[in-house]
Parts: sequence; structure tokens; C-alpha cells
Amino acid sequence: MKALVYQGPGRKAWQDKPRPTLDKPTDAVVRLLYTTICGTDLHILKGDVPEVPAGLTLGHEGVGVVEEVGDAVSNVKPGDRVLISCITACGRCPACKRQLYSHCEDGGWILGHLIDGTQAEFVRIPHADNSLYPVPRDADEEALVMLSDILPTGFEIGVLNGCVKPGDTVAIVGAGPIGMATLLTAQFYSPARIIVTDMDPARLEMATRLGATDVVDAREGPAVDAILALTDGKGVDVAIEAVGVPASFDVCQSIVAAGGHIANIGVHGRSVELHIEKLWIQNVTLTTGLVNTNTTPMLLQTLQGGKLQPAELISHRFDLDDIETAYQVFGNAAEEKAMKVLLIAD
Amino acid sequence: MKALVYQGPGRKAWQDKPRPTLDKPTDAVVRLLYTTICGTDLHILKGDVPEVPAGLTLGHEGVGVVEEVGDAVSNVKPGDRVLISCITACGRCPACKRQLYSHCEDGGWILGHLIDGTQAEFVRIPHADNSLYPVPRDADEEALVMLSDILPTGFEIGVLNGCVKPGDTVAIVGAGPIGMATLLTAQFYSPARIIVTDMDPARLEMATRLGATDVVDAREGPAVDAILALTDGKGVDVAIEAVGVPASFDVCQSIVAAGGHIANIGVHGRSVELHIEKLWIQNVTLTTGLVNTNTTPMLLQTLQGGKLQPAELISHRFDLDDIETAYQVFGNAAEEKAMKVLLIAD
Repeated sequence: MKALVYQGPGRKAWQDKPRPTLDKPTDAVVRLLYTTICGTDLHILKGDVPEVPAGLTLGHEGVGVVEEVGDAVSNVKPGDRVLISCITACGRCPACKRQLYSHCEDGGWILGHLIDGTQAEFVRIPHADNSLYPVPRDADEEALVMLSDILPTGFEIGVLNGCVKPGDTVAIVGAGPIGMATLLTAQFYSPARIIVTDMDPARLEMATRLGATDVVDAREGPAVDAILALTDGKGVDVAIEAVGVPASFDVCQSIVAAGGHIANIGVHGRSVELHIEKLWIQNVTLTTGLVNTNTTPMLLQTLQGGKLQPAELISHRFDLDDIETAYQVFGNAAEEKAMKVLLIAD
Repeated sequence: MKALVYQGPGRKAWQDKPRPTLDKPTDAVVRLLYTTICGTDLHILKGDVPEVPAGLTLGHEGVGVVEEVGDAVSNVKPGDRVLISCITACGRCPACKRQLYSHCEDGGWILGHLIDGTQAEFVRIPHADNSLYPVPRDADEEALVMLSDILPTGFEIGVLNGCVKPGDTVAIVGAGPIGMATLLTAQFYSPARIIVTDMDPARLEMATRLGATDVVDAREGPAVDAILALTDGKGVDVAIEAVGVPASFDVCQSIVAAGGHIANIGVHGRSVELHIEKLWIQNVTLTTGLVNTNTTPMLLQTLQGGKLQPAELISHRFDLDDIETAYQVFGNAAEEKAMKVLLIAD
């Protein structure tokens, strides 16, 4: 089969690789129908995630058809169309028993990180019963790919960790795919205002289309000043960091109101200066996290109920064979006006 | 009357001052029976809290007798014995309506900070109906002074913000009065282990007596290593910062387990380096805050039910007239083996 193989920092190739087989009775092998590229894959290619070994197939998102299952798998069977979760969960360890699947002792984020991932014609999925979800009847399978990672990430690590409530003022700092997923799912809780800031006017335009009440173009002046001006100097109830650099973290800690929440979603490569000399008295809550995907069933219900339109996030479509072109487009998102690039297998 | 008056950084005096009178219909004037000194008073004297004006009476803790009340006060009357909350709450502003009394628009921490405080023979208490609590029948009034600030602070900002649960492993970094108050109230929730670390062996001995399951003497080597060794390298469910310096904050961020909580109680004068490059993936929650004292009624119930022994925290007793000696003892806590110093009016 073909797979997108990481070959060390800066290098990857769409190349032949042996088709995966069942390794344990809890495994399934899935033939990909759709996959996509995540900002995290770009981080890996930059060398920011050094534990990824050369020779690994990248990717942790996708929808496919079950090809074969191990003897212990009972939730899915060959021929079933399935959503692949970016998080593998054994379901049995102490972390899984508190729904902290991101820290599963025999799973977590391993696809395209520690074991071969989904940017391939086939993928082996460990603990298939807990890590695959049957595609709901009549679901838009392209849109469903957005539920592998970005929608549960925005929802769990942004909206739920940030405790978004009806009437809140929410700021989303960064309008990439994760920021957009946060924007879509924050609306479940009817905040009064959702302010989105970014440096890309095309993304801000999209944010407005998807439900932002206010947008702040950070190229036009300090985002902090603009957001404080929008909130009569009080700041926001929930500040959601969806970039992963010190500057965006700083915006969040400067705009959060007393009693408010900072929900960090971004993947950070450097420490940040926390202004605890100001925040100690502000009764704020800061959360961090890797997605658990424990809300995937809930998100599937919202999708079926018409409360979520993730297809809006797909800006480009390519054949899976053209994945290297897709990486170029996604890696050059501003110029290409790219959000999520969908890869379609034959 | 006599009052302990702040005279600018490093200077204070027990001096004559006009006795306070009612200023608004919601005020009460209280004659002090007991008061005490807080670490925050030492911070003020060091000049760390620059908004405190010279000429202000210090102190925000105490038990007294109501002397007179304004026309709008209905919960207390002259002659009532009352606990004074360190937090003044109007009960009407948006912050108060969400029990964020620390950020009351006409109150918060103002006693001994922005208005004359409790280290005096008399004090004016604004919004008396929300800021005074009748002393329960048969209560130990000396012990009750510990409920003005340190017990609700340890409980709300340490234990509740840290979400201490049955079976948890909790670490308390710093065994001063706030750390001890956290230790006492953490036990309401039956954690499996409470590890206390400090550099003062007398305080660690006291911590053991008050319920710590393990103590770590930070003079004997890095506290982080010792705490990780005590937890099989996994770290703790809840790390409670009860000092307010970068080193103790660092201990907390180094010992928190995946999915865990860091509850910052300490008053910080400097920013800290937050290792978000490690914590982003750890699903941790960091909280900060000034006490709201919304749990004071709950704490009064635990006191009456015999679930709380705050008298243990009183290490020294002085006549109120000897407050300058009491400051010396409290400011030299390690040598004097001081925890809380009680000041007793005639």
C-alpha cells in the first residue's frame, strides 16, 4: 500500500509500505476513505515532536471501512464504515476509567505519533472497540473527518475546559482549524458574544460567517487593547488560546476578567511568562490538555441533530495520492486560504 | 481609641486615632475582642502592596461585639458577638451575585487595605449584613478568629479550587498558617495522602500532628524529587501553593500528575515561568484567587460539628496593647515557632 512516511525533520514521502495486519486481538485494520492533515503534522515535520521516529506513517484523523478485526473486537465488524478517533483508549487503565483517555497507559495520542497513522491506504487501530465509532446513518462522511480530532479538541479543551456558559463573552485567540472548531462548538452554550482574533483577514471573514459576533484583526493594532475596548475594559469570561505561542498566551492572560477562564488548546514548544503577580488575586482558572475524545458520541448526536456543520471547515479536496500537494497547500494556509484539506481515497 | 497604624513601608505604630463612626446606613461599628496578624500585613509593611495609604489601620481578621449599626442593618444588632469576615460584600453587584465577593464592586478585600482595619479597639464594617456572622452559641471565640481569613482561604482557594476528592494524593507546599488551614480543611474530603513540604522542621512536626500523612523537609534536598519518589514518579492529584514565591510555584508545576490540579493560594510579587511546553499535554488545571468567604457559613457548621479544630493554629497570645511585640514574634516565625498570634482586647 501507499503511505505518507516521515523521514526525519523536514522530510516525508508518499511511498510503498507493507499493509498493516492485526497484531493483537483488540486490533482492527481499517481501509481509509478520507483523511486530512493537522497542524500537529506540520509540527512533527518541523522536528518539534522529537519522539516521532523516522519511518512512521503520519496522520491521526480519518473515516474508513473496517477490513478485518481481532477476535476480541465486538463493536465493529468488517465492512462497517467508521470514524477513527485520534485518541486510542484501552478502556481499562486508571486514566481511561476517569475518561482521561489522552493519558491511557496503552494508548492516548499514538496514531501518527508513536505508531503508524492514517495518512495511508490502510491503518491498524489498537483497542478498536474504544477507538472507532460506527458512521451514523446518512452522515456526511467528509464532514465526519472533522470529528476525529479538531471538533472534540475545540469542544473539550476549549469550550468545556473554559466552562462557556449562556451569556458569556468568549474570546478565541487564533482562527485556524482548532479556533474554528471552538467557535462552532462554543455556540452550543449560547454565549452572548464570541470575539475571534487572528492576523488573517480571510480567516476572520470565515469566523464571522461561522458565528463570531466580533472579530479583531491583530495586524491593525494590539489585540488586547481592541478586546478590552470591546468589553468596556472588563475583559472576557473565557479566553481560549488556539495558537500555541507565547504572544497568543499573553493575549489570553491580559484579557481574562476576574473570575474568568483561560483555556489553553495550543501546542507549545516554549515556556511562557505567567503574570501571577497580577493573576493571583483575579480568581482565574487556567486549563491545558490533550483531547480525550470522550465527547465524540455527544458530538455525533449534535451532528445528526443538525446542530453542527463541520463541512464548512473543509477548504480543499485532494486525491489521497496527491497528499504531497495537499501538504504544500496546508503548509501555506494564508496564501492558499486553506482551512482543512480533505484527502479522498479512491 | 488605639490602633495599629501603617506609616509607610517599614513603619507602623500603636497610636491614638479617632474611634470610627457609622458612615452609611449599611455600616456597623464593632468593638474588637480578638484580632490577629496575617502574612499579608507583613507584605504591606514590606511595601509590597503599594495601594495601602499611610495612616491606615491594618488588619482584616477578628471577633468582636457590635457597638452600633446603621438603619439598613438587620442581621446583627448592638451587643451581638460577631465574626468579622476579611471580605466585605455588598451582596448586590454582579460579582456578589455570582458569589465572587472578593471582587465586589463596593467591597472585596478592603479592611486594612483600603479602609481602616481590625487591629484596633474599634472598626467600622461596611455592608455589615453580608460581612459579619453572629458567633455560634458556645463557640470558642479565640479559635473563631481563624475563620476570618485563613480557614476560608485554605478551604476555598486551596481545597475547593484544587478539587480535592476522596482517595486523592494532595501536596501542600508551605506549612505556614495558610498551608495549615488547607491541611485542616482538605481532610473534609478524605484524601488518601496529604504530603506537606516546608523548610521549618517545627512546622512539619505540627503538620504531622494536624493530619499530614507525609512530610518533606525541603532543606534535605529537592522537594520535587522527594514528592515524586513518594508517588512512584506519578506526581500528585492536587498541588497547593501556599507560599507565593517562584520556587514554590515551580515545585507545584513539577509534581502535578496528568489530569491534576495546581491551586495557587500564595500572594505573588513576581511573575513565574510557566512550563506550558510540558503542561499543555498534561490536562492540568491551575487556579488562582482571593478568598470569597462564601464558605464561612459552611465552615461555621463544621466547627460546631466538631470537624474542625482551628484553635490548634494559635501559637501565641498577647494583649492587644502588646501588638508591636506580637508583630516581632510573628515576623520572626521560624525562631519563635510562631503560627498564628492571637491578640486579646481587654
